[in-house]
Amino acid sequence: MTIQMNQLHQSESISDIITGMEKSALDRWYRGDPSGYLEIYADDIVYFDPFSDRRIEGLDQLTEIYESIRGELFVERYELLNPKVQAVENMAVLTFNLVAQSEKPNDRWNCTEVYLRDNQNRWKIIQTHWSFTTPELR
Amino acid sequence: MTIQMNQLHQSESISDIITGMEKSALDRWYRGDPSGYLEIYADDIVYFDPFSDRRIEGLDQLTEIYESIRGELFVERYELLNPKVQAVENMAVLTFNLVAQSEKPNDRWNCTEVYLRDNQNRWKIIQTHWSFTTPELR
Repeated sequence: MTIQMNQLHQSESISDIITGMEKSALDRWYRGDPSGYLEIYADDIVYFDPFSDRRIEGLDQLTEIYESIRGELFVERYELLNPKVQAVENMAVLTFNLVAQSEKPNDRWNCTEVYLRDNQNRWKIIQTHWSFTTPELR
Repeated sequence: MTIQMNQLHQSESISDIITGMEKSALDRWYRGDPSGYLEIYADDIVYFDPFSDRRIEGLDQLTEIYESIRGELFVERYELLNPKVQAVENMAVLTFNLVAQSEKPNDRWNCTEVYLRDNQNRWKIIQTHWSFTTPELR
């Protein structure tokens, strides 16, 4: 019983840590600063977004893409809806919907992040998947 | 060193198991049979696709959606491109691109699956994210 409660507690902590990391990175992202994400991406991250014609492989490739839009993306307000973390000891998946208040009429996103805890107890993102919510309506 | 090799071996096994499970489920999916996936979804699966206006929560909700298209989707050939598995002992993330040869001119997908091993040593999908590759080109 004690073990169960400890596991639950630990799992709640992971959820708080991961969600907090994501929000911090997003806050910077929407102020034109991609470094919030770049600093927490693992070297071997894999990445999907609606603009690439295949999976992006690795931090070098993703850095190049992110640096090309540094200082260009600004969103005053966004809502991160229903963040959910499913975790084991050293891996966690965070999913959420996001609504950005931007010039686009339907700036809505689905997002899946997978975090891995490394041997120095640091959580890093190893997989990112951004997609449009109902892309036909854009 | 022995431990490292065992870990590597185990990790390769996980990759084979997960990729095999996904291909079996996809083969049935493209013959109009959603049960291949439904049988390997965890009860608390979370799910994104381009047709839903938010994250789908749980097997009951997803079963309802899948049953509504049973027997309606047929694709003769598809290519699963560059499947990659990133795993720890009891959780694994599988990512791939998929190209289906269907009546649609650009039936291309990004996919992220997260598998969790339960206490009976069965891998189940706890998170699915399907999105269109380059939706603007559809």
